[in-house]
Amino acid sequence: MKKLINAPENVVREALAGMAAAHPDLLRVYVDPDYITRADAPVQGKVALVSGGGSGHEPLHGGFVGKGMLDAACPGAIFTSPVPDQMLAAARAVHGDAGILFIVKNYTGDVMNFELAAELATAEGIPVASVVTNDDVAVRDSLYTAGRRGVGVTVLVEKIAGAAAEAGADLATCQRIAEKVNTQGRSMGMALTSCTVPHVGRPTFDLPDDQMEIGIGIHGEPGRTRQQLASAAAIAELLARPILEDLPFRRGDQVLAFVNGMGGTPLIELYVMYHELSKILAGEGITISRSLVGNYITSLEMAGCSFTLLRLDDELTRLWDAPVLTPALRWGM
Amino acid sequence: MKKLINAPENVVREALAGMAAAHPDLLRVYVDPDYITRADAPVQGKVALVSGGGSGHEPLHGGFVGKGMLDAACPGAIFTSPVPDQMLAAARAVHGDAGILFIVKNYTGDVMNFELAAELATAEGIPVASVVTNDDVAVRDSLYTAGRRGVGVTVLVEKIAGAAAEAGADLATCQRIAEKVNTQGRSMGMALTSCTVPHVGRPTFDLPDDQMEIGIGIHGEPGRTRQQLASAAAIAELLARPILEDLPFRRGDQVLAFVNGMGGTPLIELYVMYHELSKILAGEGITISRSLVGNYITSLEMAGCSFTLLRLDDELTRLWDAPVLTPALRWGM
Repeated sequence: MKKLINAPENVVREALAGMAAAHPDLLRVYVDPDYITRADAPVQGKVALVSGGGSGHEPLHGGFVGKGMLDAACPGAIFTSPVPDQMLAAARAVHGDAGILFIVKNYTGDVMNFELAAELATAEGIPVASVVTNDDVAVRDSLYTAGRRGVGVTVLVEKIAGAAAEAGADLATCQRIAEKVNTQGRSMGMALTSCTVPHVGRPTFDLPDDQMEIGIGIHGEPGRTRQQLASAAAIAELLARPILEDLPFRRGDQVLAFVNGMGGTPLIELYVMYHELSKILAGEGITISRSLVGNYITSLEMAGCSFTLLRLDDELTRLWDAPVLTPALRWGM
Repeated sequence: MKKLINAPENVVREALAGMAAAHPDLLRVYVDPDYITRADAPVQGKVALVSGGGSGHEPLHGGFVGKGMLDAACPGAIFTSPVPDQMLAAARAVHGDAGILFIVKNYTGDVMNFELAAELATAEGIPVASVVTNDDVAVRDSLYTAGRRGVGVTVLVEKIAGAAAEAGADLATCQRIAEKVNTQGRSMGMALTSCTVPHVGRPTFDLPDDQMEIGIGIHGEPGRTRQQLASAAAIAELLARPILEDLPFRRGDQVLAFVNGMGGTPLIELYVMYHELSKILAGEGITISRSLVGNYITSLEMAGCSFTLLRLDDELTRLWDAPVLTPALRWGM
């Protein structure tokens, strides 16, 4: 195992300390229970967005804490759900008397723990609403999930609902917008290589040199098929077609096209994949009006990528364009 | 070779097409000769910054084209210098009648080709000044370079001199500021793994499972030592000490601390390394007043990282903070 770490059991805490040191203007990091808040939390009168999940998907979620996006993030151990104590402490810390929106990726542990935290917070008089993302069209049920997994669309929910909250929308409105993003978004991913969880010390799965996994999950869960390596053009078809057919996206749609790297794939390849996706969409009469290309929801050093398409309307476009100031996504301020 | 590509010989062109498709608001991409300009080039009355180099280091340089940073970038084949025709065409396209600043990493081919392009442009009546970055303290001469290599500080030169140009500084001032950044900056890198150039199809070098290369170059050139894997803390010492001693940085200095990923290392590890670097600097009485953490000057999918420290003064800090709007670095607009 070749990693830039000290003891495997300290990776998450040390990375949190690094985030605190690198972004004192944006973030506050708390330990035991572990959570990250924006530096100016709580923002009085603003709905607070709280997300979280296993670590190893950076910059998700901690890198999206800041103005115009998340108020707090709760990092679990690598590929392991955070616990309700973290979410409850985060909710208390960021509650600005306008309620809390939990943004939860659909994995069994995350859903269960966020539900328990919501009950505990509600019992304390903190209003909580939740949205569960489930945009992955690859498989219906998986190793860790009943129903579809929540993947790339989570980044877009955090940005777009975060902009709504920043603009003063109430809790019900933030929840409605978050659910609209999830409803209008679809994703699918693939891997060329596995990744190694530090405290495990060996690759999560074996993938022969001539094979790839199509429809993989962000924890390395099996996808739809394992098949021979193929060209970027062929891989783009394998990812884009199930996405397009599922919503379905239609001629004339305006979309946000998000090509995400799994962590170990260089940017030059992600742009090759974006080119292939843009050609497929042009062929279907679908217009890309916004884009995002880079490593935003990763699986440690896994090589591979995912596509996410979000059907845009005026409301979502305006909220996407709104200023944001986080470690990993920033513009307009 | 596991890569998200079509034919190896088309990777650069297809990635350029992907950049053009993803960022039509920011960039224009030209082919044969290949170069990228900001969408609103030429900006009349503004000094234009032009950089370039071998591809495979993305987002450097094309990802830094836009308002407040580069006016144009010239991508060569992977790990291969661009040719003078590209630089000349780029200079013509972005010349706003205030002259051109070439920003050149110190590699023999790049230096030679930018020099020739400068002569050709000057002969056409386009004033050109140049700055050559040579911040890598690891080795004095290398496989491809007489003198020190230009690495991480190049990103900072492009941002800071770009801000000066955007604010209306003249060519001599932009050159002075670029040279100051290079003079006040030092870098060193390391690798855990090699990378594979697509048209070669096999790793650039072999690195046993228990070894790492300290002081490596961004094309995989040998560094100072090849040694046993070590902890993040030990690696941080191996990179930071030569940097600190070289300038030298002194107690009371304010610095920009830049922890850069080589392409295949996940962000969580870069933050672990940032934490180690921050502890070393605190111990030396050096204050980190600005930071940058992420994959900004890469070597395809190489795993590893580099440290760059830049001694800041008020002028450099103000220019670093100025708004920038490029695919890979954006804030304030």
